[in-house]
Amino acid sequence: MADPQQPESPRSTSAEQGPAAVFLTQTEAKALRAQAEADSLIGRSIRAERAQVDAWLRSPVSVPGSGAGGGVEHEQHKRNYLMIFAAGRQHLIWQQPEYAKRIAEVLSVYAERYTTLPFAKPYSHNPPGRLFHQILNEHMWLLFAAAGYSCVRPGLPEALRQRIDEGVFAPMVEMFTRTYRHHFDIIHNHGMWACAAVGVAGIACERRDWLELAVRGQFGDSETAGFLAQLANLFSPSGYYEEGPYYQRFAIQPMLFFAEAIERAWPELGIYRHHDEVVRRGFYAAFLPSFPNGALVPLNDAIKPMNIKSLGFVLGASFMYRRYEADARLLWLANLHGQVWPDAAGVALSDAVHTAGAEALHCELPSVELLCGPKGDKGAVGILRAEGRHHEQAVLTFDAGSHGLAEHAHFDALTLGYFARGQEVLRDYGCVRWINIEPKGGGAYLPENVSFAKQTIAHNTVSVDGRCQHEADAELAVANPSHRLAFHGSGDAQWMRGETVGAYPGVAMRRTVALLRHADFEHPLLVDLFAIEADADHVYDYALYYDGQVVRTDFDYAVSRNLSPLGTDAGYQHLWRVGAANLPAGRGLFSWLQKSCYHSLSFATSGPSEFIFTRIGANDPKFNLRAEPGLMLRQAGRDVVFASVLETHGDFDESREFSQGARGRLLALEIEDGGARLRLHGTDADWVVELGDNVALRRI
Amino acid sequence: MADPQQPESPRSTSAEQGPAAVFLTQTEAKALRAQAEADSLIGRSIRAERAQVDAWLRSPVSVPGSGAGGGVEHEQHKRNYLMIFAAGRQHLIWQQPEYAKRIAEVLSVYAERYTTLPFAKPYSHNPPGRLFHQILNEHMWLLFAAAGYSCVRPGLPEALRQRIDEGVFAPMVEMFTRTYRHHFDIIHNHGMWACAAVGVAGIACERRDWLELAVRGQFGDSETAGFLAQLANLFSPSGYYEEGPYYQRFAIQPMLFFAEAIERAWPELGIYRHHDEVVRRGFYAAFLPSFPNGALVPLNDAIKPMNIKSLGFVLGASFMYRRYEADARLLWLANLHGQVWPDAAGVALSDAVHTAGAEALHCELPSVELLCGPKGDKGAVGILRAEGRHHEQAVLTFDAGSHGLAEHAHFDALTLGYFARGQEVLRDYGCVRWINIEPKGGGAYLPENVSFAKQTIAHNTVSVDGRCQHEADAELAVANPSHRLAFHGSGDAQWMRGETVGAYPGVAMRRTVALLRHADFEHPLLVDLFAIEADADHVYDYALYYDGQVVRTDFDYAVSRNLSPLGTDAGYQHLWRVGAANLPAGRGLFSWLQKSCYHSLSFATSGPSEFIFTRIGANDPKFNLRAEPGLMLRQAGRDVVFASVLETHGDFDESREFSQGARGRLLALEIEDGGARLRLHGTDADWVVELGDNVALRRI
Repeated sequence: MADPQQPESPRSTSAEQGPAAVFLTQTEAKALRAQAEADSLIGRSIRAERAQVDAWLRSPVSVPGSGAGGGVEHEQHKRNYLMIFAAGRQHLIWQQPEYAKRIAEVLSVYAERYTTLPFAKPYSHNPPGRLFHQILNEHMWLLFAAAGYSCVRPGLPEALRQRIDEGVFAPMVEMFTRTYRHHFDIIHNHGMWACAAVGVAGIACERRDWLELAVRGQFGDSETAGFLAQLANLFSPSGYYEEGPYYQRFAIQPMLFFAEAIERAWPELGIYRHHDEVVRRGFYAAFLPSFPNGALVPLNDAIKPMNIKSLGFVLGASFMYRRYEADARLLWLANLHGQVWPDAAGVALSDAVHTAGAEALHCELPSVELLCGPKGDKGAVGILRAEGRHHEQAVLTFDAGSHGLAEHAHFDALTLGYFARGQEVLRDYGCVRWINIEPKGGGAYLPENVSFAKQTIAHNTVSVDGRCQHEADAELAVANPSHRLAFHGSGDAQWMRGETVGAYPGVAMRRTVALLRHADFEHPLLVDLFAIEADADHVYDYALYYDGQVVRTDFDYAVSRNLSPLGTDAGYQHLWRVGAANLPAGRGLFSWLQKSCYHSLSFATSGPSEFIFTRIGANDPKFNLRAEPGLMLRQAGRDVVFASVLETHGDFDESREFSQGARGRLLALEIEDGGARLRLHGTDADWVVELGDNVALRRI
Repeated sequence: MADPQQPESPRSTSAEQGPAAVFLTQTEAKALRAQAEADSLIGRSIRAERAQVDAWLRSPVSVPGSGAGGGVEHEQHKRNYLMIFAAGRQHLIWQQPEYAKRIAEVLSVYAERYTTLPFAKPYSHNPPGRLFHQILNEHMWLLFAAAGYSCVRPGLPEALRQRIDEGVFAPMVEMFTRTYRHHFDIIHNHGMWACAAVGVAGIACERRDWLELAVRGQFGDSETAGFLAQLANLFSPSGYYEEGPYYQRFAIQPMLFFAEAIERAWPELGIYRHHDEVVRRGFYAAFLPSFPNGALVPLNDAIKPMNIKSLGFVLGASFMYRRYEADARLLWLANLHGQVWPDAAGVALSDAVHTAGAEALHCELPSVELLCGPKGDKGAVGILRAEGRHHEQAVLTFDAGSHGLAEHAHFDALTLGYFARGQEVLRDYGCVRWINIEPKGGGAYLPENVSFAKQTIAHNTVSVDGRCQHEADAELAVANPSHRLAFHGSGDAQWMRGETVGAYPGVAMRRTVALLRHADFEHPLLVDLFAIEADADHVYDYALYYDGQVVRTDFDYAVSRNLSPLGTDAGYQHLWRVGAANLPAGRGLFSWLQKSCYHSLSFATSGPSEFIFTRIGANDPKFNLRAEPGLMLRQAGRDVVFASVLETHGDFDESREFSQGARGRLLALEIEDGGARLRLHGTDADWVVELGDNVALRRI
């Protein structure tokens, strides 16, 4: 499995002076020291980290008990492990005894207290640790603390070393791998962290048994559990991660750390070539589902501002640059981050960024289809990108993929997202979790995550008879992924088509979404055709969530005198019915202002329909939800079609009292031939959108 | 009246080569040309304006009919007048005949069409013009177009000059001063624009009669109407403008333009010394009521993002620098603007900015009390400023002043505003107007401006028996200003006290607000004591509006299953009752997250009270309102007290999943001695706030 072209093996280098630190050789440390004063990414990275470590040394040693997410104790343990990690590296770079001394001091206190601490109060079904309310965080503690410890351990007196090894590291590994054996190496981001932590601790404490357990799993087969099994099962051939971009961002951290640690300690394993270079695929697919502002596409549970500046991308840019080829996107990322990883890889990447021209540091991500499932046969997530005027990229996202792992998946087959003019336009709610805000359920997921955010009606797709897809049964949903039917990711007419059959019994749903550029429009048009065939009559709710304020409609509506929830369950209980309109002809135009620009949605339904203005926030006894607006088109029948075209137009700058183009060019939409074609009527021209096998927009 | 120290008289300079342009002499133009390539504020200002003019010359001549605010016609006329103005100046600087040619061309079309155009469709009670839906905009057209015209008029053939003078300028002046005589020189920002426009046109077209009419008013007395009368009546001794900061920002434009034009054409008038240098006072008081982000404090009708970068401040910085002393704040403003006014003043100011050090370009505005009323005897608006950690300035605003002019005034005596950590915390709604968004009522004020925004309940003050102050009768309100009782604008305990008697019959309200710094708190505390004495029992609603999401309360509450409006009139009909709690002890803590930090309001009422969660947006048939949250404390009785302390604390960065300090240090508040003192209970200490004649915070 080992690659014959393998670069310098850290093991051999470290042999010069005892066991190497997990992530840094003496040779590398010396090279970093030589760079530490440079006005470069690597120089700034080293100095910024050192400043943090120095501040930590000036603060008192503090090892508290456990607390809720975001609480004082939680934040202190987190600071401790991050600083042990950083101080270890800074010690190797500067050979400053105070750094080693502080690490030993703090770890001694942990070693003394750890087994005496009671288990923490849990806030979720994730088992509690002794330091944190969930062992996931304790895994992180282990990985970072062990890595930092490995930098100073060879220099510690034997007795102290033993006290630390056996006071905290061994009991922690014991807890993870035995007490919580059922949770240890499961195929899941938690399993990835657990394996990486135990493996890194094994390298740090010279416990080859821990390392092998972490790599091959508790059954030793490398297939049902353990790091190798996870790599093979959690990523699709496209590198898409089962739990979605937010958790992919999180899962690549242990993946990258552990892969790099293995490569240094066990090069024969050829981890970077493993499973068709799954580490490489997993990293590159992690930042493809991102908006031009860097935020990750919020599929499934997601904290929405999470973005490609997070740690995994910093790590990955450097590791990928050294371990694979010098991809230009890595330079772009490093420049965006303003930092690189402090090791040999970071030095090389920093040099490359500083010799590259400004042009090379620019990157427009491409349209891409990410196949889902370990074999790539469980549908796909599509991301279509097109530039509008002023070189602003519009991004359409479409999920015709697998349900993902049960825990963080949403029942949102065929959901649509749209980002334009620097803002998320057709929005996904993300998850209901006030991350690390202790007074809000200890920072954990809140009940409305299940009762609202995961429900179909919380998404930009169609709900049937007021129910959730697959009756909110994750097992059913996992067994029934969507199908991708077509994907065209280039040219002026980009489009994608997907299908879901049986998410509702006897109902087949097919959605075609397109991003169309045309000289008549300042910005690409988003086209959406949602066609449903069923074996009986149903009521269909086509929902879209937006942000901003209503500018106008071309139909009369009535606002509600009093607000009532739209329903009693399946997420409807959280939506206020703010107003409504009957549309006998099933057509209308709805226009809103979102900060700096306007959007107009021209829509048509195959039969009479009702337009409903909604707002999130009903039945929310603890104010856990954000009061965001939405709209809904409700249509009854057996086989129905919803069609819409979204035009983004105009400019508004309130501070300059400037507005132009508050009305778009489109006036109305007609469905022709059951949806084979849409006719668009404009203020001064008409257009046709062909929606068969060759999607196209042309003026007529 | 003339100042013997009067600097260079433009009139004498221009005598060399015929009549001078209104705002620029040949000598100045030559000096500007010499600066045009410089990498300086003045150089960049000249080049930026020239680029705009060049773009205008490349576009076709277009003189449409009239349209709504923000409509195509509106924007075209606006562009035309701004470009005529700029092209005139650029012509003098570059002596390029194309500029003069284009101005003459466009004005010829106006001259040909103007009197043939019908009056526009009005959207407000402001009379319509022929170009714009309200003559206010036509005044602006006249001022800018006449000033631009004056740069090229001396060089035009006599016949053409006459055609333009008589085709458009004379009929416009005729319309303003005769057709709309009742509206012409009234004491109001519209009157200011009308006078300035007619006066500038008089200078440009060599019609001394227009100039004198504009300066002295239609009765010729300089006291009841006209520019001089307006200067004397619209500004208080502190320079506070009757209509509030948003309109002050607007009114200083014609004030500064016309003052500068008069100084150049009629220096003997000594306009800059007039009425104790009212021009100077009016300018400086215009940016004092601003938040650290530059936004103007939203008292009365206000478009909230309007800020100190707007045109009047650019003009003013340059004019003040030349006509009065070299105040350091002018350098700060010019640097903030990134531009200066292109004339001799701008050259001097630009030089000063570039020779000043970085320190000199920084400015922390001071705490200030702005007296209201022409004589300063109609109460005051107070602005208290104090720094928190990280040098972030907190700003408390308190309105214990006059009602202002009827048209744009709100019934909000004793209203409180608060800005901290870069955000407006206790918020004012501003006005209900989608400025220049044509589909929204032609960009004009909307019905909810009267039914909600002006009502007392829309403000951070107390409403009595669900009614509006002064029964929403502007005449009553104007006759009954608030009183300022105390103001202390320096030190660690800054505070202010004001009183309103009779805003409700038989009710006297006294409010003491303070901004207190103390080493125990990372950020200043805001303290608010609202004491009411009445001759009968009433129901009192103490309202506050905030932004963000509820984190926690220390009391139980129930959210409403269905939402109903809080009332039927006086603004209550626009508030949803979202939830409520009965507080028999009249005490509680309410905490919320606003983007990057937390706020906790500890409050106490003198008797049992009800806490009500509100949200704006009920009875809003056209979605004209923003759905913002608020809270209300309701207390019944005769003499009552509301007390509250707002603690700003912690940090939150969702993209980094980082939170600290989500709970503040304060736990509860007690009113002692009827409000002479507040006792604050904290997590680890207690404090006392003395609220008598020496406000102070101390730990006990």
